[in-house]
Amino acid sequence: MKRVVTFGEVLMRLSPPGHERLFQSPTLRTYFGGSEANTAASLAHFGARVEHVTRVPSNALGDAALAALRAEGVGVRACARGGARMGLYFVEGGADVRPLRVVYDRAGSAFSEIEPEHVHWDAVLRGAEWFHVSGITPALGEGPLRSVHAALNAARAASVPVSLDLNFRPALWVGRDPKPILQPIAKRAQLLIANPGAIETMLGITTAGTIPEPPEALRATAEKVHELFGCTRVAITQRETISASEHGWQAFLWDAADGAMHEGGRHQVQVVDRVGGGDSFVAGLLHALLEGRSPAHAVRFATAASALKLTIPGDFNRVTADEVERLLSSHR
Amino acid sequence: MKRVVTFGEVLMRLSPPGHERLFQSPTLRTYFGGSEANTAASLAHFGARVEHVTRVPSNALGDAALAALRAEGVGVRACARGGARMGLYFVEGGADVRPLRVVYDRAGSAFSEIEPEHVHWDAVLRGAEWFHVSGITPALGEGPLRSVHAALNAARAASVPVSLDLNFRPALWVGRDPKPILQPIAKRAQLLIANPGAIETMLGITTAGTIPEPPEALRATAEKVHELFGCTRVAITQRETISASEHGWQAFLWDAADGAMHEGGRHQVQVVDRVGGGDSFVAGLLHALLEGRSPAHAVRFATAASALKLTIPGDFNRVTADEVERLLSSHR
Amino acid sequence: MKRVVTFGEVLMRLSPPGHERLFQSPTLRTYFGGSEANTAASLAHFGARVEHVTRVPSNALGDAALAALRAEGVGVRACARGGARMGLYFVEGGADVRPLRVVYDRAGSAFSEIEPEHVHWDAVLRGAEWFHVSGITPALGEGPLRSVHAALNAARAASVPVSLDLNFRPALWVGRDPKPILQPIAKRAQLLIANPGAIETMLGITTAGTIPEPPEALRATAEKVHELFGCTRVAITQRETISASEHGWQAFLWDAADGAMHEGGRHQVQVVDRVGGGDSFVAGLLHALLEGRSPAHAVRFATAASALKLTIPGDFNRVTADEVERLLSSHR
Amino acid sequence: MKRVVTFGEVLMRLSPPGHERLFQSPTLRTYFGGSEANTAASLAHFGARVEHVTRVPSNALGDAALAALRAEGVGVRACARGGARMGLYFVEGGADVRPLRVVYDRAGSAFSEIEPEHVHWDAVLRGAEWFHVSGITPALGEGPLRSVHAALNAARAASVPVSLDLNFRPALWVGRDPKPILQPIAKRAQLLIANPGAIETMLGITTAGTIPEPPEALRATAEKVHELFGCTRVAITQRETISASEHGWQAFLWDAADGAMHEGGRHQVQVVDRVGGGDSFVAGLLHALLEGRSPAHAVRFATAASALKLTIPGDFNRVTADEVERLLSSHR
Amino acid sequence: MKRVVTFGEVLMRLSPPGHERLFQSPTLRTYFGGSEANTAASLAHFGARVEHVTRVPSNALGDAALAALRAEGVGVRACARGGARMGLYFVEGGADVRPLRVVYDRAGSAFSEIEPEHVHWDAVLRGAEWFHVSGITPALGEGPLRSVHAALNAARAASVPVSLDLNFRPALWVGRDPKPILQPIAKRAQLLIANPGAIETMLGITTAGTIPEPPEALRATAEKVHELFGCTRVAITQRETISASEHGWQAFLWDAADGAMHEGGRHQVQVVDRVGGGDSFVAGLLHALLEGRSPAHAVRFATAASALKLTIPGDFNRVTADEVERLLSSHR
Amino acid sequence: MKRVVTFGEVLMRLSPPGHERLFQSPTLRTYFGGSEANTAASLAHFGARVEHVTRVPSNALGDAALAALRAEGVGVRACARGGARMGLYFVEGGADVRPLRVVYDRAGSAFSEIEPEHVHWDAVLRGAEWFHVSGITPALGEGPLRSVHAALNAARAASVPVSLDLNFRPALWVGRDPKPILQPIAKRAQLLIANPGAIETMLGITTAGTIPEPPEALRATAEKVHELFGCTRVAITQRETISASEHGWQAFLWDAADGAMHEGGRHQVQVVDRVGGGDSFVAGLLHALLEGRSPAHAVRFATAASALKLTIPGDFNRVTADEVERLLSSHR
Ligand SMILES: [Ca+2]
Ligand SMILES: [Ca+2]
Ligand SMILES: [Ca+2]
Ligand SMILES: [Ca+2]
Ligand SMILES: [Ca+2]
Ligand SMILES: [Ca+2]
Ligand SMILES: [Ca+2]
Ligand SMILES: [Ca+2]
Ligand SMILES: [Ca+2]
Ligand SMILES: [Ca+2]
Ligand SMILES: [Ca+2]
Ligand SMILES: [Ca+2]
Ligand code: NI
Ligand code: NI
Ligand code: NI
Ligand code: NI
Ligand code: NI
Ligand code: NI
Ligand code: NI
Ligand code: NI
Ligand code: NI
Ligand code: NI
Ligand code: NI
Ligand code: NI
Ligand code: NI
Ligand code: NI
Ligand code: NI
Ligand code: NI
Ligand code: NI
Ligand code: NI
Repeated sequence: MKRVVTFGEVLMRLSPPGHERLFQSPTLRTYFGGSEANTAASLAHFGARVEHVTRVPSNALGDAALAALRAEGVGVRACARGGARMGLYFVEGGADVRPLRVVYDRAGSAFSEIEPEHVHWDAVLRGAEWFHVSGITPALGEGPLRSVHAALNAARAASVPVSLDLNFRPALWVGRDPKPILQPIAKRAQLLIANPGAIETMLGITTAGTIPEPPEALRATAEKVHELFGCTRVAITQRETISASEHGWQAFLWDAADGAMHEGGRHQVQVVDRVGGGDSFVAGLLHALLEGRSPAHAVRFATAASALKLTIPGDFNRVTADEVERLLSSHR
Repeated sequence: MKRVVTFGEVLMRLSPPGHERLFQSPTLRTYFGGSEANTAASLAHFGARVEHVTRVPSNALGDAALAALRAEGVGVRACARGGARMGLYFVEGGADVRPLRVVYDRAGSAFSEIEPEHVHWDAVLRGAEWFHVSGITPALGEGPLRSVHAALNAARAASVPVSLDLNFRPALWVGRDPKPILQPIAKRAQLLIANPGAIETMLGITTAGTIPEPPEALRATAEKVHELFGCTRVAITQRETISASEHGWQAFLWDAADGAMHEGGRHQVQVVDRVGGGDSFVAGLLHALLEGRSPAHAVRFATAASALKLTIPGDFNRVTADEVERLLSSHR
Repeated sequence: MKRVVTFGEVLMRLSPPGHERLFQSPTLRTYFGGSEANTAASLAHFGARVEHVTRVPSNALGDAALAALRAEGVGVRACARGGARMGLYFVEGGADVRPLRVVYDRAGSAFSEIEPEHVHWDAVLRGAEWFHVSGITPALGEGPLRSVHAALNAARAASVPVSLDLNFRPALWVGRDPKPILQPIAKRAQLLIANPGAIETMLGITTAGTIPEPPEALRATAEKVHELFGCTRVAITQRETISASEHGWQAFLWDAADGAMHEGGRHQVQVVDRVGGGDSFVAGLLHALLEGRSPAHAVRFATAASALKLTIPGDFNRVTADEVERLLSSHR
Repeated sequence: MKRVVTFGEVLMRLSPPGHERLFQSPTLRTYFGGSEANTAASLAHFGARVEHVTRVPSNALGDAALAALRAEGVGVRACARGGARMGLYFVEGGADVRPLRVVYDRAGSAFSEIEPEHVHWDAVLRGAEWFHVSGITPALGEGPLRSVHAALNAARAASVPVSLDLNFRPALWVGRDPKPILQPIAKRAQLLIANPGAIETMLGITTAGTIPEPPEALRATAEKVHELFGCTRVAITQRETISASEHGWQAFLWDAADGAMHEGGRHQVQVVDRVGGGDSFVAGLLHALLEGRSPAHAVRFATAASALKLTIPGDFNRVTADEVERLLSSHR
Repeated sequence: MKRVVTFGEVLMRLSPPGHERLFQSPTLRTYFGGSEANTAASLAHFGARVEHVTRVPSNALGDAALAALRAEGVGVRACARGGARMGLYFVEGGADVRPLRVVYDRAGSAFSEIEPEHVHWDAVLRGAEWFHVSGITPALGEGPLRSVHAALNAARAASVPVSLDLNFRPALWVGRDPKPILQPIAKRAQLLIANPGAIETMLGITTAGTIPEPPEALRATAEKVHELFGCTRVAITQRETISASEHGWQAFLWDAADGAMHEGGRHQVQVVDRVGGGDSFVAGLLHALLEGRSPAHAVRFATAASALKLTIPGDFNRVTADEVERLLSSHR
Repeated sequence: MKRVVTFGEVLMRLSPPGHERLFQSPTLRTYFGGSEANTAASLAHFGARVEHVTRVPSNALGDAALAALRAEGVGVRACARGGARMGLYFVEGGADVRPLRVVYDRAGSAFSEIEPEHVHWDAVLRGAEWFHVSGITPALGEGPLRSVHAALNAARAASVPVSLDLNFRPALWVGRDPKPILQPIAKRAQLLIANPGAIETMLGITTAGTIPEPPEALRATAEKVHELFGCTRVAITQRETISASEHGWQAFLWDAADGAMHEGGRHQVQVVDRVGGGDSFVAGLLHALLEGRSPAHAVRFATAASALKLTIPGDFNRVTADEVERLLSSHR
């Protein structure tokens, strides 16, 4: 059983019941999630030994966030406690022509004020087999950015390979250029995961701009990422939002070893919960690659895993590797 | 911000949870609604200053009905209190091949016994910019019919333009011919909204009878309404009930100024709640026209608004004008 | 297993969740109940073979009412279907200083328009061992009153003994004197159940008027009932409403055979649901007497049974005879 | 009103709310069901007088199972009480690419230990017009198998015709060959219902093996069933699982009288709850045939009935015969 | 119908279901409230015309806050929109030995950054008959404090009398002395409401310090408030927290006109929701005094009103004046 | 942070909502618990490092059981997976005169078939500071009994002190004498916890038999336990079931070091959930003793901890040590 370390903010999400609009009923369903934590939870369901590093406040919300991760099987021993508040977001799922609506309330969160010294990075990464972070974390503040670099340094010192999911969130970069921040991090990653738009905005590589982009264009983009940043594997995901209730989802993995662009297949899914789709793709990829599967299999496994995620309420992909394999075998 | 007055019954609606049949669980969800009140609520969400006139009993149900309207931003200062009971209806939403099922329990309601003297019609309509009523209201009893005429007279005295949504409900007209009642009201309306069946049954104008009817047939029908009743704008809506879970929805607006039939587009929608679709179309039309938009834009705005309504639980269309515009711009 | 027949209206009750006020949440819990039906349901839980006679509309509400009775084990084969609507009532339970609040909506119900010919009274009562009715039923209209007499005549013809629970509900008798209606019915009852106030208002016998009344006063009242109306057993219940959340409950049974006033004990109970307390007392009494138990035991059994009812949500006393006996034996 | 007797286990089913995975929320929805009980409940909704025979434990779960059947209008007077426990199963409905998941916990159930002497089979079947059992019942243990034969003997003695729904459940036959058990039972059935796979596995007749099979292949299979087992009517159902959320459903009825294969039509349905689809088909067939309708009509009625079932939560098909007829008439 | 203006923050409150601890279930119930808004809502239920002034963000939470106030009948036309976020708090109700637990998350709220120029204070207070504010508002920041003074100046200019509920919340004053802030405001109030502890901490008047304090001590305190700050009426409330589930509640009103200390009585109440008890007392007092009732009656009315509040979930006292009078008349 | 190991079955508990009877609503709330697991969860909330050892099936119920423990902070790495099924029990909480009702369904559970070789006992207990087991575990079968002895041997080998909570459950010992099984285990325990009845039935020491027993009688009993079994500390708990809604709870701790009987105080509590009260007492005792507190303090801490438990839904005592200390300081 492999040991993976992930790092990033955990938010409490609040959603109305059924297909209601926010606050139409006086009831909210709580979930906990966050890009890297979602990847961690999915890896734990695949059987990995995962440690998620984050910072939550010393109150009932912070307690609940850690309990939620522990329940999924994610280790939280290295997490820092403190800070003013838990980051929140309110999500209305939408339906067909009515799109997803999100109200963020994450400013001033405990995590946004994390500092490298809150975490024993050397101890955390010693003996780990993988470290994963997304482009959300360095966007959250100076302390999170410093912490990413502290983690990357500790990973290098411990020879732990690194993956980076660019995960471009426009709201986090308003008035800032993400490129000078993300490019150095990309150079530290063996595996980079992104959609074409994020690659253009955060790494400065021009892409075709169509939805979906043709495989040949994606291959060119992946090669460019490899040339400029040295990543030996580049995964590119593409979501077609047919409506709030139906998505097309496909992905590719470029592998420096054979220079091939491996196709993960396309799933068109009636969406139960779109949040965490990309994060579950990363988990599928890491799981399969850490188990020594070929890139060709890994991207198919990861794409099927994230198709399953879209049918599950909440941010976490609560499926086993067996369930993913069963979908793969029924899917052609 | 425009001031609109609407008039009609408010009912309490009770529905089972999820996709259940009525009384399968011992839990019911309450909503409040009614054709003109639904239009009022949607207008309030678009930013209008709306006053809804109705009559509810002096008990907890009447209190709750008014609270529900106030919550949406609809004024209820002119409402009458009194009478025996609140009208109710029980709605089971259906699913795919299982159609919507409704059990009405509205006989003897407070509203069905409203009289013109219960409302200060002159005061209510003084300074208003629009008055809206549907063909349901005059069907509910002699007092409601007398009240419609009192309102129309006050509107004329105050130079308030009038819209009429024919809204044919067969159950309300059993054993009665609606024509002698609706035709005089239609003559007082500048704007008439209806589907082809209602125009045939309530105004006596023969229509094509296909579903959907071709635009040319609808234009001929609209022109006939104009000739016979003098309405300067005639909106015709068409619903295709593909299944209980999927509807096609389209609408047209004929405008006497240019004699053109403006097309609102067609939306095929996975239905969350079909109740109030037509009422939200009226609200979209009034909102756009009162804001001085062209008939061509108004009908597209109204059609998109009602497509959004079909995705929202409850009778009210809880969407902003911005949300409607976003759908319009994403919809080609 | 004894066969008992009960007769009376079944209403749908709607209550808000928890300790909320009516319509504070958009959710209502449904229950079905009615004085005699409650007695029937409790008897079924005690193992009796009970048939409840009522009339409900031919719609989903009527279906649900009969399903609720059948679920409890009450026979509904003799029930009539038809009429305009189901009688409803909305109940807010109250808490401590905030009293129970009820909004009735039962006018024009299917039952209020029942007629003797809707029910095969001879067939229903043939072979029955007991017939029970309350003072609510004759208050509901001319048809219900005629039906009570039809039932009493059929009971006499079939030598079926009769019980009458006076059950005075002021709202049903506004502007009417119940005495001329109830006195003839009381003369047909072998067993009469009532609280002192009902005896005074409905039978015209002056009582002490204190709460609680002393046993000696109650005995005098019971003897007077016996003298004037010939009932051979008279049960008197007394509820002390300490608060909406706590009631004192006691009862006595006067028996013509020994002229003794048997005491049922006093239970002070934290009330979960006060509705149906008296009806469950009647069921306890009938159960014990029909099983041949002594009046002294029967009144203790019935009082304990109704103490248990106060702890159970809904109108029905869902307890077995064993559970009642266990409370009796633990209660010194 | 016809009297039908059904025989089989009733299980308590527990499901998570909405589209959640099992135990994602700390809430479960309970249902009661079982193949033959589902058929009984649907028949009761069609107006039949149905008696279901089963065995449930003498505890609150057994009480609730019988109450659930009684609520639907199914007679339970002949049911046995006793045994160790209620059989349970946990069902997660799935969504699109995520398939239905079931965890059975039925070993050692009260029913699995039923013996012929627990039921007065002669009395139960005297005067009945039909007896129905499925291939699940004989799989549940020696006692259930002996009881099936006791019931079949009593049916023969009372000249009650028999239907058998093969209902192959692989988990119940692990390590056993169903043929020697089912073949003798099939010989006792006038009407046999099955899908092609069950016919192959349980009766030993080779089928085409495609999904769906062409009508000609099905006709050959039906004729073979008739030849080998003497059933005069053979119904074959076919489900296409397009996704967990969408099924194609069609059925055929072969009739020995005219040697024709009557087609029931095909319904493609957005599935709310797939459990009990086949059982509701059987109910539709029995209802129509017992009412004297032609096989051609009966199979169309039964197919439409089970299409409606797929839209209803829970195991029971809570639709009236009128609702089925309305779907038939709207379906071309 | 009197017109009252109130001013203060509105928070969204989130609570777990039943008696659960925070985040024990993944469900939260939302309420909206805040000291002065609670007073406003209660006054609206008493029939007053109330306008609440606050500032909420331009998002779905701010929309919902205003909808909640409108639903209660409180006017929100003068409210400001803008700012970063809605203030939140999480409340676990406690039970018996387990006390109420609150997690505040209100830092950086839209209201905490309100400025006098966000509100048209002259227009708001013109024609008003009362202005009410609590000691929470000036504690929330410089802008709220400046706004209180702007409001008080506008009130003086419009001759609107003022009430101040000291409402000491230790968490808001950590490291600050409330006296220099509250004393000048107290000097502007005709009516002051407080418990003894708040008077000591916020006004600097030494009190007896026992719980409860004897009436004579309270009278001396009230007279001192009058002497130092000129308030002509001083109400003192006392809560005895017997357990989280049971409170003793009493209050007194000192009146400068006759120099008498009027006693409101003592209610010992099983607590459903303790939040907003004091605010509902203020509403009762203002309602009775504005209706011209004597101080002796007003304090009894207000004490009974707040006893009722303790039995109602949520921050608002949803009771009518009639319900308060009924409690008063039943309470000896 | 101390490391504690606990051993015992984990059951899934299912309860109806609110104060309802079992299956009155079609909804059940799930909890997980079990005597020793409850102790473990409470210790984790006090900050201990706890490992619970159990065996759960390899299905969704077993997954959920372990997730529930992990969420509380309890380690489950040493747990065995396998076996036929999860043990269940259905709990109806009761109210006042209506007692708690439990339906067990635990026969044939995965844990009842645990064997010593399923667990690496040496590894589990190496480095532990305490081992805890209850008298329920050895009652569950031969394998569990063998496992208890394997654990005790490993504990002795690793010099880990042992506590035993006798926890007499009559249903588990029907037809068996617990003495020959429990007495040898008691001899291995440094700390024994029990109520007087359990000591009499399971250890064979005659007790006073009154409820409550006087402290002097309890001291004599404790000394006898010490003499016969060598336990150096003996805790005796006493529950007075005033009603299903109100319990008196007190405890004593006898300490061989000073021969004193330390009194824990008496709490009379309105009960929200009585399950797990004794288990939380054990956790309080272990926490305080392992932190080096005096026996006098430890028994007061433990008694207060378990009083708090009675106010919390579910089996686990979700309170921090700070919360217990706060109750202790407010409780005189
Ligand atoms: Ca698909
Ligand atoms: Ca992403
Ligand atoms: Ca569409
Ligand atoms: Ca319409
Ligand atoms: Ca009591
Ligand atoms: Ca009564
Ligand atoms: Ca379809
Ligand atoms: Ca089947
Ligand atoms: Ca009290
Ligand atoms: Ca206060
Ligand atoms: Ca207490
Ligand atoms: Ca115990
Ligand atoms: Ni849905
Ligand atoms: Ni899993
Ligand atoms: Ni898992
Ligand atoms: Ni809006
Ligand atoms: Ni669509
Ligand atoms: Ni809105
Ligand atoms: Ni309660
Ligand atoms: Ni029962
Ligand atoms: Ni008692
Ligand atoms: Ni759905
Ligand atoms: Ni039916
Ligand atoms: Ni039905
Ligand atoms: Ni409560
Ligand atoms: Ni109100
Ligand atoms: Ni009081
Ligand atoms: Ni409670
Ligand atoms: Ni904790
Ligand atoms: Ni905790």
